[in-house]
Amino acid sequence: MATQPVSDVVINRLPLYLRMLTFLQREGKTITSSQELSERLDFSSAQIRKDLSYFGEFGKQGTGYNIEYLQKQLRQILHVDHDWEVVLVGAGDLGRALVHYQGFAPQGFKLVAIFDNAPQKIGMTVGDLVVQTMTELPRVVRSKNVRIAILAVPEEVAQQVADELIELGIRAILCYASITLSVPSDVKVHYIDPVAGMQSMMYYL
Amino acid sequence: MATQPVSDVVINRLPLYLRMLTFLQREGKTITSSQELSERLDFSSAQIRKDLSYFGEFGKQGTGYNIEYLQKQLRQILHVDHDWEVVLVGAGDLGRALVHYQGFAPQGFKLVAIFDNAPQKIGMTVGDLVVQTMTELPRVVRSKNVRIAILAVPEEVAQQVADELIELGIRAILCYASITLSVPSDVKVHYIDPVAGMQSMMYYL
Repeated sequence: MATQPVSDVVINRLPLYLRMLTFLQREGKTITSSQELSERLDFSSAQIRKDLSYFGEFGKQGTGYNIEYLQKQLRQILHVDHDWEVVLVGAGDLGRALVHYQGFAPQGFKLVAIFDNAPQKIGMTVGDLVVQTMTELPRVVRSKNVRIAILAVPEEVAQQVADELIELGIRAILCYASITLSVPSDVKVHYIDPVAGMQSMMYYL
Repeated sequence: MATQPVSDVVINRLPLYLRMLTFLQREGKTITSSQELSERLDFSSAQIRKDLSYFGEFGKQGTGYNIEYLQKQLRQILHVDHDWEVVLVGAGDLGRALVHYQGFAPQGFKLVAIFDNAPQKIGMTVGDLVVQTMTELPRVVRSKNVRIAILAVPEEVAQQVADELIELGIRAILCYASITLSVPSDVKVHYIDPVAGMQSMMYYL
């Protein structure tokens, strides 16, 4: 645990360090350095050392970081050293692509249910899941004590669905709707907005 | 144009301001303030004023911002005051969901072609597009002088495809593969990584 408040910007970089450590490990490496991470991630090595220093001493000057140890520590810091169950709302193209996405499970995010309110989608099989009606949402979220939801619904209904999820105890929302949600201060939202990403790159073209 | 270098973090917020201005406009508003933007976006009003001040004077103390004017200025700053053509590589679940995604076109991003190298996908219709073989990529990118690509391919081939795109003149890549690409300094990459987003939220749970 950090001994002082750490900014969101720093926290957002930790998963990138974790991901790069996994790549380096796959390449057969067991030790890395802030210099190597810097070259691979395009952040300065000073920034990497500073980010990590909020949470402790993970390497020694001159000997670098033990990859497996640093991975384990980062997983503990981020609370991803155990599995998390996730519900998904929205069984459109995007929702179905997310169920088929191979990236969540290996990182401990288990999609346990998918919901939609369109009658023609209810009962449809998507991967290992069956689309359930929104009226089942409270039962599923409460019985499994789920804290995380993915919102893959149109922006017109995103706030309303978010309100319902938060009411049921959801505290982290991965939001694909192109909207800024109003949420209580104890709820985290991470937005996936390809348009905003595109627009910010255009600045440099 | 900014009179001094502006950090990526600031540039990344400009699309969020633009998006919020559109929402406020839809609500019938014509004037807003850094205070109102602050409440809706959950950034401090001082930060909003500072971000905008890099690019000029857009409002007057006490009278706020003219929404239409500020939108127009932000579009110019971001170079999204005209359309951009975009190629998409990868016609899997994700690629197809992206073709059907309704968010790009209204913001001036026109998907003009989709490519894949799987024989069974070539010729498949996705929305208004027909999946083309990767061997067509050079012809299409060069003839239309496309500068922007979306990468929706597996991470094992992402670097190789990125290299090919860059060789053809692509200068901005929206990357859905869970990988950090090595690219020249004049190429921008924006990553869409739902796992990293999830992991950074878990810190707060």
